[in-house]
This record gives sequence, structure tokens and C-alpha cells, in this order.
Amino acid sequence: MDAVYHNQNSFESSLDTAGKVITCKAAVAWGPGQPLVIQDVRVAPPQKMEVRLKVLFTSICHTDLSAWKGENEAQRAYPRILGHEAAGIVESVGEGVEGIKKGDHVVPIFQGECGTCMCCKNQKTNLCQKFGVNPLKSVMVNDGKTRFSTKDGSPIFHFLNTSTFSEYTVIDSACAVRIDPKAPLEKMSLLSCGVSTGVGAAWNVADVQPGSSVAIFGLGAVGLAVAEGARVRGASKIIGVDINPAKFTKGKAVGITDFINPRDLEVSVHEKIVAITEGGVDCSFECAGNLEVLREAFLSTHMGWGLTVLLGIHPSPKLLPLHPMELFDGRQIVGSVFGGFKGKTQLPKLAQQCMCGTLNLDEFITHELPFHKINEAFQLLLNGKSLRCLLHL
Amino acid sequence: MDAVYHNQNSFESSLDTAGKVITCKAAVAWGPGQPLVIQDVRVAPPQKMEVRLKVLFTSICHTDLSAWKGENEAQRAYPRILGHEAAGIVESVGEGVEGIKKGDHVVPIFQGECGTCMCCKNQKTNLCQKFGVNPLKSVMVNDGKTRFSTKDGSPIFHFLNTSTFSEYTVIDSACAVRIDPKAPLEKMSLLSCGVSTGVGAAWNVADVQPGSSVAIFGLGAVGLAVAEGARVRGASKIIGVDINPAKFTKGKAVGITDFINPRDLEVSVHEKIVAITEGGVDCSFECAGNLEVLREAFLSTHMGWGLTVLLGIHPSPKLLPLHPMELFDGRQIVGSVFGGFKGKTQLPKLAQQCMCGTLNLDEFITHELPFHKINEAFQLLLNGKSLRCLLHL
Repeated sequence: MDAVYHNQNSFESSLDTAGKVITCKAAVAWGPGQPLVIQDVRVAPPQKMEVRLKVLFTSICHTDLSAWKGENEAQRAYPRILGHEAAGIVESVGEGVEGIKKGDHVVPIFQGECGTCMCCKNQKTNLCQKFGVNPLKSVMVNDGKTRFSTKDGSPIFHFLNTSTFSEYTVIDSACAVRIDPKAPLEKMSLLSCGVSTGVGAAWNVADVQPGSSVAIFGLGAVGLAVAEGARVRGASKIIGVDINPAKFTKGKAVGITDFINPRDLEVSVHEKIVAITEGGVDCSFECAGNLEVLREAFLSTHMGWGLTVLLGIHPSPKLLPLHPMELFDGRQIVGSVFGGFKGKTQLPKLAQQCMCGTLNLDEFITHELPFHKINEAFQLLLNGKSLRCLLHL
Repeated sequence: MDAVYHNQNSFESSLDTAGKVITCKAAVAWGPGQPLVIQDVRVAPPQKMEVRLKVLFTSICHTDLSAWKGENEAQRAYPRILGHEAAGIVESVGEGVEGIKKGDHVVPIFQGECGTCMCCKNQKTNLCQKFGVNPLKSVMVNDGKTRFSTKDGSPIFHFLNTSTFSEYTVIDSACAVRIDPKAPLEKMSLLSCGVSTGVGAAWNVADVQPGSSVAIFGLGAVGLAVAEGARVRGASKIIGVDINPAKFTKGKAVGITDFINPRDLEVSVHEKIVAITEGGVDCSFECAGNLEVLREAFLSTHMGWGLTVLLGIHPSPKLLPLHPMELFDGRQIVGSVFGGFKGKTQLPKLAQQCMCGTLNLDEFITHELPFHKINEAFQLLLNGKSLRCLLHL
């Protein structure tokens, strides 16, 4: 409980910390697959356009798992503070920051919104050319340096513009979304990645219509969030596909109407889906990060207008398992990052939709643990036991 | 001149031909790559929902070339009457045909519109589940039989719902578009495939916006029609890419603003395009049917919103040369068949746009020959000498 005690302490004294280095606990990754080490780190004050955030809640997503395992060698940088799904309170802000001040409730976003690049100015995309997703990036954009260091001053690297596995973190203001202080912060953490990614894929990318049919491949938190998004939009058939039957109970709670376990079938998944949907679903969502699954998801949609939305990460060097001529059947495939949400512009409204019950997040937090048990939380996700384990800092 | 004489003769006496077999000249393919044989064929009367068309003009498209060469063994069927780009006059109609009568001016379409299948009833697609593109199909949908035969009664197979290399052909009414009799029929032939495919890709599929930038890979008739479509829409930069410099002169006439010959470059085409367009074009069009070109076209578009429209045919068994993760940069790729036009619904308006000069078709017919010189016309296209050689029947 030391860490938690220290935590509260430093918040109460935050008046004194602005402009100073804060020493706090963080979970540091020192090498691929090694247990994270809870240790003291030094967090420098926010520089120009940056925000220092006191993280109150954080959780673990598969992208953290992948980075932790060091699956892509080129993306390795140690020591590093992972984590990108969180919620917290602003401790202090750097020069030039507008619209965010000390004490604001904030959700950090790994896919920033600078507001000035060509992509931010274009309504067709939520990508940001300055603060986009780049797992290779391990320093701040401002000066190419880290804000984290060890006691002896060696740098500790950043991750995905956020690094939330720390009691305090520094993020660019482009990656800090101010939300209604009445919103329950522990649930807002989910908007930081998983839930927004899934719900937004259904709303912004696929634009799921009332009465339409949907198939979701992979029922982790993201896949279930797609289902929740499709349910809210009034989809009449929401098919969940997963090889883990334990996911099906949870799926029912978020509106999944039909379940398919590929291991129970004598035909391929797409043949089954085509058979039960008059020729295929209107949209399918690939949330498994598997190329064979991707192909099944693609072929599960209806010719002419079927859309497959890609959400899973595909670290393999293999190419899309689609023949160019297959595109002439009118099926489309698109990638979706952060559910197509322009974070700073659109997340405050999403938070309100959660507060008023339009969107139901109750099913997503399956476990809660104190921050220092973060390695247990990793194992829960690895073993498919948890959707989200909320860590309390 | 025998064939032409016979032609006029049979039209004038068409009152007598309804319900009877017509003997006329056709260019018959007897084997892969063999010169077409102009010979007498028997054309049966149209059956239920069918139309018998007196073909007045026809031209050759690359899909005809590919079928003629027998590039895909599975699609071979001999003897066969190729050809799918044409215009003509209705000689007679079969039982149940509504909205088309003897004497109507008609453009045949290889991508039909039955009006009743799930795709025809959906505004998101122009595919037709009953009369779609199927190069394997060599008989009529109605009864699985051919309407063409040799003098001794052996079947001659159909091609792409149209088979226009014949003085008379029978097509399903779903593949016959009635157009304004004041429209110049020789130009309307272009709407049967190439021009509609290109213009529609710009208008319906990419929805090219005023002031936007476009890159077109492959400047055959289809690619130039894309340029014409983009010009009409007010695109400010229309980049043409081709290894044949002779195409550039023609390109200027249809509004191409910049030319790139890949052989003149020391960098890749997409690097060049990114450099001259502030990060990439809004849309690119692959009209070459080449996978390396496809990849260049994809990478030539701007991250976040770039759209690549696939028009070229890719007979190779190779997969899309794209990595799934590349879709997360917000670039999209879609296939386009017949320019996204629902033929029977939308082509009459397109014909009017040609008549009133909105769309300029003057540049597309580069050669004209009598029908019996069809093998010369094939050579002109094969050698890149012609865009369209109009054959007069």
C-alpha cells in the first residue's frame, strides 16, 4: 500500500510540485517479457504545450502486451514506461497550453489531435501527422527528450504518447482530453483506448445502421465494444465469433445475438455467416489480429456493399490475404485507429453518452487491483481471464 | 462490302425477322490468339425478357483482348463471339420485355441491372447478382442455352452478357439500356464500357471534388476517361502516369495537367507524386492491371483519406501487395466495376451529358474501320496505337 499512500500525498501537495521534478512510483519495463518493476522514477515538469498528469486509474490493452513481449524488435526501447489507457487529474501545465488547467479531469489519448496538421484539418480522418501512433517513438515530440528518468538521471523512455503505468506522466496537450469532472473517472479510463476503438469503429468507420447485420471476430474488450456500439445503433443481428466460449456469456450482456465458435463448425465461418444472413453481413470487424480470421471476416460480408473494418494488430510481415479481383465483388476493407474519433473534439461527447447511459460500460471492467499488482493484471489479460483489469494508483 | 449490304437489308426487312432465326455475319473466336473468323452465324429469336439487337457500332476493349488471348484457361469457351462495347437498334423483343421496343436505340451493358436482386435494390452498389460480370458464363441466363449457332446448328458461345462482334446479338433486357434516339450512336458505343468505367470511377466511386488532386496510372481509354471525369468535376491537379509517351499528347486534350513517365524518374512514382502534391493525391486510379503499379498507386495517395480505385484486371494469382498495417494509415482501396453506374438507371442521363457537351468524347475514337477488318483493330489496340477503333457493321 506504500505506493497508494505516496500517491495521495503527492496530490495533496500538488500546489508545491508545479515546475519541479516529482519522484513517484512507476511500473518500468526493463526487457522483453520481464516482469515490470515498480520503482521510483523522476518525472520532469511539463514543457511547452505539455501537461503533467496525475494518473488515478490505468488498465492494460493488448498493445501493451505486445510491446511488453517485445514482439517487434525495432520497437524495443528500455527502460520504458508502457500503458496508454488511463484517466487522471492535471497536476500542472507547460507554457502555451490553452483549454486545460490544473485540476482538470483528463483522459490521455495515444492518437493525438494537434488541430493544425493537414489530417487534423480534414474531416475524413482522425489521424494526426504530429501525434499519430508510432510505437517506435519513445521521446517527447517537443525536444526529442524523455521526461522520465531514474534516480541517477538516466532516461526512461515513453510509449504511445502516454506512458500511463506511472503515478505521474507527461503528455503533450494534443494527447490530453478534458472531460466533464462529474464523469466517473474509473470508467473514463476505458475511453482512452479499448471502448472508443470498438464503439467508434461501429459508429464512425462502419456507420452501422438500424436493422443491419454485423459480425465481430474476436470478443476481447475491443470486440465487445464494437457490439455495444452496434447495439446502440440498432443493429438487428450482431454475430460474435470467438474460440473461447467463456466470452459468449459476456457477449450476451452487450447485445450479441448469435455466437459462432469456429471449433464447433464443419464449414468455414464465412460460409456459416453467409447461410444465416441472406448472403452475408453488412459489416464485419476483425479484432483478432489474425490473417486467416481477416479473410473470413472479409468473405462474411455481403457482396456489393460489405465492409470489413480492421482493428486487430498484425505484426506478421505477411500481406493481405486478398486477391485484387476480389475487390471487384464490391466488398471493402478499411483500417480503423481509435475508432475514427478525433479525440479532443469528440471524446467529451462520448463521455457524456456514457454518463447518461446511452453507452453502457458496466461489463468492461472485470477486475480491479492496486497498481503494484500490475504483473498479475498482465497475466489475467494474457490468459484471457479479464477484459479490463482496472489498476488503482 | 457484302456484310454491310446484308446488314442494311436485314434491318429494312426487320418486320419480317421478328420471331425468326436471322443469319448474319459475326466475328467468331475459334481458339486462343487465333484471328477472328468473319462468318455466317444463326441468331435465334429473343426468348422471355430478352432483346435481339442489330449492332451498328462496336469497339474493342482490353477485356476482349484478354479473352481473345485465352489468358485465363478456365474462361475459355469456343467457338465464341466476343465484344461488349457497342450501340445498336432493337430488332425485336421477347415475351415480357417492358420499356424497350423494336426500333429503340440501345447500348448493351456487360454489367446488367435486373432491378430485383438484393444488390440492384441497394443504392450502395451497381453490381447485379443475376447479370453480373462472369467471364465463365457463356450461355443465356434464361435457359442455359446459346442463341448463336453455326449453319449446322452447333452452339456458338456468348461473352459477358453481350457478344457484340456480330451484326445481330441477343441480350437479356437487364443488359439493354434505352437511350435518347437523338444521341449519336457511334459515340454512345463508348458508354457501353470504357468511358463509363473511367468517368464513373471518378464520379461515383471516388467522388472527385473540385480542387482535388488525382493520379491516373495507365492512360488507355479507361484511364483517359477517368481524367475526363476528374476534369468535369473540377479537379485542379490531374497527374497521368504511363510508360508510353505517345499517350501524353492525348492526355492533355482530356485535362491531364502533369505527366510522369516512370522510366524518366530516379525515384519511385509514389515518391515523385508525394513530392509534387503536399503529401499525396486525394485519389489514385489503377488502370494498368499490374500489381507493382497498384502498390505505387496506393502509396501515391495522402495518408488519412487517400483512396485508390482499382479498375485494371489482375489475372495473376498473386495477392494484394499491401500489408494489413498499411491500412491503418487511412489509405483505402476499392474495386470499381462499370464505374459504379447502375446501367439501366443511370446511363440515359450520362448519354444526355455527352449530348450537351458536359462530357467530351471526341478524343476517344482514334480509328474507324469496317467490321470485317476487326483483326486489324485488335492489332491497333495490342500495339498501343489506338484508344478505341470504332467498327462499323
